Amino acid sequence: MSGRLAVVGLGPGDARWLTPEAEAALAAAEALFGYAPYLDRVPPRAGQRRHPSDNRQEIDRAREALHLAAAGRNVALVSGGDPGVFAMGAAVCEAIEQGPDAWRALDIRFLPGVTAMLAVAARVGAPLGHDFCALSLSDNLKSWETIERRLDAAASAGFVLALYNPISRARPWQLGKAFEQLRRHLPAATPVVFGRAVGRADERVMIATLGEADRIAADMATLVIVGSAATRLVARPDRAPLVYTPRTGDAGS
Amino acid sequence: MSGRLAVVGLGPGDARWLTPEAEAALAAAEALFGYAPYLDRVPPRAGQRRHPSDNRQEIDRAREALHLAAAGRNVALVSGGDPGVFAMGAAVCEAIEQGPDAWRALDIRFLPGVTAMLAVAARVGAPLGHDFCALSLSDNLKSWETIERRLDAAASAGFVLALYNPISRARPWQLGKAFEQLRRHLPAATPVVFGRAVGRADERVMIATLGEADRIAADMATLVIVGSAATRLVARPDRAPLVYTPRTGDAGS
Repeated sequence: MSGRLAVVGLGPGDARWLTPEAEAALAAAEALFGYAPYLDRVPPRAGQRRHPSDNRQEIDRAREALHLAAAGRNVALVSGGDPGVFAMGAAVCEAIEQGPDAWRALDIRFLPGVTAMLAVAARVGAPLGHDFCALSLSDNLKSWETIERRLDAAASAGFVLALYNPISRARPWQLGKAFEQLRRHLPAATPVVFGRAVGRADERVMIATLGEADRIAADMATLVIVGSAATRLVARPDRAPLVYTPRTGDAGS
Repeated sequence: MSGRLAVVGLGPGDARWLTPEAEAALAAAEALFGYAPYLDRVPPRAGQRRHPSDNRQEIDRAREALHLAAAGRNVALVSGGDPGVFAMGAAVCEAIEQGPDAWRALDIRFLPGVTAMLAVAARVGAPLGHDFCALSLSDNLKSWETIERRLDAAASAGFVLALYNPISRARPWQLGKAFEQLRRHLPAATPVVFGRAVGRADERVMIATLGEADRIAADMATLVIVGSAATRLVARPDRAPLVYTPRTGDAGS
């Protein structure tokens, strides 16, 4: 009997964002792996074994899931958001590349999901409505110089920016430094959206400007979208403004 | 009675990528608007009026949907993929900004979906596994110079690129010109993924290199992902290779 591995995107917190494809893969799995808070979002089913793990153990988690799949089991490895965006997808590929040949023969499927930037953007309008970049501010696995170079390149060329992993206890200064860097290219009035825990009970979405962005609290569960010079606010009575980037994507158009 | 408008992301072609939230909004709507081929993907329901429209009429379509919502109806406007990514979200915001004040008082919700680049990426592994940009190659609403500047900025800074709207009958040369531009920054061996009609019966996914990318046919239904210098292939026996960008995202790491 040959096993298989599904790398499943759960989407952001709200179960109404879980795709039917992902739901079916979770229901069919004999064993589930994942970062514990993500696994907690999957309803228990009889006969399934659950293997929760800590954060920042992506490669080990991927290897354990591959190992069990290679032993013939139907395994699901869950990921928040979309597995291909700053999540488990790349770790699984890396583990396969470095692992035993048998892992390359496995039936592996990657199941896409709604990634955080799409959910945060949807809460306020369409800030990603034109060309944009997704950039992780974590300098655990790349240099801060690389991050600064990418911030410069993206902002000066007119891309909107979605910032993943903006801050953590071990990385307290990176987001402030990124805002400082972006202010060299963008007006202080540029809209910035902070989306925390979107789709969960403690969701909090804030709209600020780049000039005042340092005053807004962010944490590990926050996704930050920084507009381009073209990004606009539409004021509304008794509602938060809409934030959108026009389809032209050119500043001043 | 106050109307409302849901701007609904259908995801790519496969109904198993439609979120439960989007499904519920489609079921509750009294009227559905959308580009005809997208509306065709929504099963008919008794008592619903359907208003299909042609492509490239985004603003008119948005206005008609807003007009009916302002008249007190529960309206859904459908979009392929995610409404916030090169789709109807920005057109709706633009129509509201330019429209009558009453439209700003409406209950508007944007419902996120799986956008094409996530589905294409999932078919081959995790090519968007690290920092990436999403860029539309359509020069209908922005200049080709702007597009070239963004291609240069993104590729030279090490972003992977997801190219939306790569080609159409009216824009036959843009994709080839983009590859030419990218070859100034990236090795000929850089992996390129062509995902056509992903999730539909006529799906076709091809993996090529930047050096040979001109030889692969693309059309309006194609999404192209161009790797960075860090993007890797993992060969597999009797299966297509995996394509992924390591979590470090640095070339040569």
